Amino acid sequence: MATWEAKGAAKRQALLEAIPAQWRLPHIPSPKEQPNVTGDYIRQFLTPEEISATEPSAEEILVNTMSGKWKATTVVKAFSHRAALAHQLTNCLHEIFFDDGIKQAEELDAYLAKHGKPKGPLHGLPVSLKDSLNVKGYDTTTGIVGLIGRPAEQDSELIKHLRSLGAVLYCKTSVPQASFAAETENHIIGYTLLAQNRLLSSGGSSGGEGPLLALRGSVVGIGSDIGGSIRHPAALNGLYGLKPSFRRLPIRGVTRVMEGQDQVPFSLGPLSSSASGLTLIVKSVLQQQPWLTDPRVVEIPWRDNIYQDYLNATKGGKQLTFGVMRDDRFVRPQPPVNRGVDILVKKIQGLGHKVIEWNPPSHSEAMKLSLATWAFDGSADVFSQLGLSGEPIVPSVADIFGNEPRKPYTAEQIAETNISIWKYREKYADYWNSNPVDAVIAPTYPHAGIIPGKLRYGYTFYGNILDYSVGVIPVTTADKSVDVKVQSYEALNERDNLVSTEYDPELQHGAPIGISIYGRRFEDEKILGILEALGSSNVGTTAPSGPPSHL
Amino acid sequence: MATWEAKGAAKRQALLEAIPAQWRLPHIPSPKEQPNVTGDYIRQFLTPEEISATEPSAEEILVNTMSGKWKATTVVKAFSHRAALAHQLTNCLHEIFFDDGIKQAEELDAYLAKHGKPKGPLHGLPVSLKDSLNVKGYDTTTGIVGLIGRPAEQDSELIKHLRSLGAVLYCKTSVPQASFAAETENHIIGYTLLAQNRLLSSGGSSGGEGPLLALRGSVVGIGSDIGGSIRHPAALNGLYGLKPSFRRLPIRGVTRVMEGQDQVPFSLGPLSSSASGLTLIVKSVLQQQPWLTDPRVVEIPWRDNIYQDYLNATKGGKQLTFGVMRDDRFVRPQPPVNRGVDILVKKIQGLGHKVIEWNPPSHSEAMKLSLATWAFDGSADVFSQLGLSGEPIVPSVADIFGNEPRKPYTAEQIAETNISIWKYREKYADYWNSNPVDAVIAPTYPHAGIIPGKLRYGYTFYGNILDYSVGVIPVTTADKSVDVKVQSYEALNERDNLVSTEYDPELQHGAPIGISIYGRRFEDEKILGILEALGSSNVGTTAPSGPPSHL
Repeated sequence: MATWEAKGAAKRQALLEAIPAQWRLPHIPSPKEQPNVTGDYIRQFLTPEEISATEPSAEEILVNTMSGKWKATTVVKAFSHRAALAHQLTNCLHEIFFDDGIKQAEELDAYLAKHGKPKGPLHGLPVSLKDSLNVKGYDTTTGIVGLIGRPAEQDSELIKHLRSLGAVLYCKTSVPQASFAAETENHIIGYTLLAQNRLLSSGGSSGGEGPLLALRGSVVGIGSDIGGSIRHPAALNGLYGLKPSFRRLPIRGVTRVMEGQDQVPFSLGPLSSSASGLTLIVKSVLQQQPWLTDPRVVEIPWRDNIYQDYLNATKGGKQLTFGVMRDDRFVRPQPPVNRGVDILVKKIQGLGHKVIEWNPPSHSEAMKLSLATWAFDGSADVFSQLGLSGEPIVPSVADIFGNEPRKPYTAEQIAETNISIWKYREKYADYWNSNPVDAVIAPTYPHAGIIPGKLRYGYTFYGNILDYSVGVIPVTTADKSVDVKVQSYEALNERDNLVSTEYDPELQHGAPIGISIYGRRFEDEKILGILEALGSSNVGTTAPSGPPSHL
Repeated sequence: MATWEAKGAAKRQALLEAIPAQWRLPHIPSPKEQPNVTGDYIRQFLTPEEISATEPSAEEILVNTMSGKWKATTVVKAFSHRAALAHQLTNCLHEIFFDDGIKQAEELDAYLAKHGKPKGPLHGLPVSLKDSLNVKGYDTTTGIVGLIGRPAEQDSELIKHLRSLGAVLYCKTSVPQASFAAETENHIIGYTLLAQNRLLSSGGSSGGEGPLLALRGSVVGIGSDIGGSIRHPAALNGLYGLKPSFRRLPIRGVTRVMEGQDQVPFSLGPLSSSASGLTLIVKSVLQQQPWLTDPRVVEIPWRDNIYQDYLNATKGGKQLTFGVMRDDRFVRPQPPVNRGVDILVKKIQGLGHKVIEWNPPSHSEAMKLSLATWAFDGSADVFSQLGLSGEPIVPSVADIFGNEPRKPYTAEQIAETNISIWKYREKYADYWNSNPVDAVIAPTYPHAGIIPGKLRYGYTFYGNILDYSVGVIPVTTADKSVDVKVQSYEALNERDNLVSTEYDPELQHGAPIGISIYGRRFEDEKILGILEALGSSNVGTTAPSGPPSHL
């Protein structure tokens, strides 16, 4: 019987061997030697044709693949090469099936040749997938050693839709152990690094999507979010991201821990280098009427009028009112994040909109409620999964689940928690009704880049507890010359919960800062319209050569 | 310290005293003496004007109150009188606030006089309310003695909307102890009787709405349904009813046991003497954008196109396909129910539609899942409520919760149950996709009238577990001359769960039979369109003098 170390190492090796020999890097520089591997660094390993195929936006790629100007096969090969490089530099993949992607692309090319029209609205677009999604024939380890070697028997529901829509699937991206932390570390691929600064973490739990997209090994990927897992890597890696409301995109057949915990809703959603890339996915999947095959999904079709109204209004067509929630009163944002909020506020004001200070019910209450629901089973499920191989829990996951199983909640405590969640939602709705705004601007995370092992949670939990639609927009990058360390924090209201985060201007220099914009439940079209209007300067340009700064 | 018996008796007496002296009946006949108190029996106590004001459909009443032809005051006084009579004959009320209703009506009359237009789409329409809804200043006992004398501090959210829409509120209707059984019995008002045959039960848990509406003490009422509590009394009392999907109408601020049990969704919905009465309520409440104030409600506005399409198609505009699910393989329907299904099937076929046999995943599994979720807390909440006064549990409620607290579920068992619910929903969606139909016809309950103490559960549970939209349409009445007792039942597939129900053709003669028509989740507009088309012969006529038979 192999040890968990040996099993993890074997899987890690098998993954490297799934990369064609000619795409393997002879030398992988250390993070210190080469912190930033984006832009020209990764381009040196690519042909001009590969660069041209991988750097436009998802929409631009589609214009070419849908018309047949570019072969889907050419596109997926270029992305596969780039994904192979990204993985070697950042440990961002869990599964590689480049050959399947090429086969799928060949079928699409044949389809277009035969029928004279594309298979669907995503014809030939490569889409990367968080490991939690099941792809038939491949493992879904979710970072658990004991789940290696158990290939999925069928595709997740969303995967079926993506295939019908013409998307090309070629890889699955890395996640934390049990896919449940904001640092992506497990005993299979190790630790996933930030492509812009490999001394830092790529975040999590959709942590592999971050560097893969930042390095243009993908142009749009699917993540999942139960406490910030889409928004966090989007913000840290300089990407756009959307955590839609639960019940919008299908989650049937996705692998997760604590599956019967339904109180904090978990969503699948897109991350992309452009806002339009997010819209593309949500709009296309909703065309499939996903509510018919996944009973979790609500029968709300894509509402193009809401999307168009907010797209036009945000650009200046009509005055909107935004709230700004600068601090969650739990963890204070680091200086670059505060600056990011200011930049976004000014940008929005500059477009003629009103921005008001927003002091909603305590966001630390949302965090406590999230943590409570995750403690219902006393970590039994997580430790049972770890027990399959005997692997120890990694520190960032232990931060949530402890170092050993705990006392589970009683039925009565579970019911009380559920009641508290509804009360919190009611209180928040009342606040919103009394302080009407179109959307709210807030930090996504306290961090400007996570120093490994120094992660602090905060900010994102409201999104799931309230089940709101939350988008992330890349705004700036940490800059040691302006974002100076503040030696002392002023006290906040909720002193007992207040923690500060260590900030190292030198180490965190260049880390991308993404800011959140949130609407109420199911306001996904609104948020996408706003994101796209605000980020439009990025639409249609090639990938940034360094950390993106779109505003 | 008064005993629970004394407290219940005092509240019962106070309720009678809230009825103006001139409306009190000098003699209340025994059920045996006068089984059927509908039609001419109740009319003998009313003036011709009162009869004219209370017997048209909700829509017809509105035409007159909205235009000012009828004063809202006149209408609510007539309904109050009739409700007072109904209560004395069937024990159908828990709270009486006729004076408040008259005051509200006076304000509406003044509004119309001043502004020349009605206050809202329900201007002047009296609406009765299940006791579970909170009306500021009045008790919400939900049939629990220990909750007497604790007036609600604020209105339930739906009540606020009804007031804004112009509806007049004048009484709350009886429910079983803890509002959780299909027989309406508690230690406050006693036992609620079927108006058409007072030797039988009115069903439950929205059990007071049944005889109140059948006796035209109301024309439309609001019930709630977590396992059949709207559908069951609608079917038994010859009424139309709709259990909308959870998250369609607001339930914020409604009193219930096991509040933190969110796994089986509970809905508020209308019961009425006409299908159009149901539509009126759902459509009007959705105009209020109830999702803004109740975070449980999904942002799906009233979709008139779906409603119109199905209204027209059902009338013969387009061929539809209906499934028919004759037996839930758990409890066999009594002969009049089987005949009711046949009548409805023939009616639908006669309109040119296709009817196919429907064999979905086991409905007894839905029942097991419902019962499991209601056992999560080991009946702790119910027994804690009973303990407030020391009252014993009534037998029909003990059928569900036991005679004493039981072992609660562990967190792990709760999670497993939640997973099973989702699997069941997935399985059912798959069946529906493979056997596409527009809607399904099924018995609502096994019974044609419930002989007190001989209730058997069955049939309705799928509606909540799947969260489907289910309508009830009155079809026929039990007829001892044709519905003969079948001495032996054929065995069904799931033998171990099979129970039969006692049927007494003589005793149950004349009991109304309502059949269910169900669509998928959120298909409320579709179901309302179908119900209205099928029941249109009833629209606009006066109340039936005996048990209704619309088809």
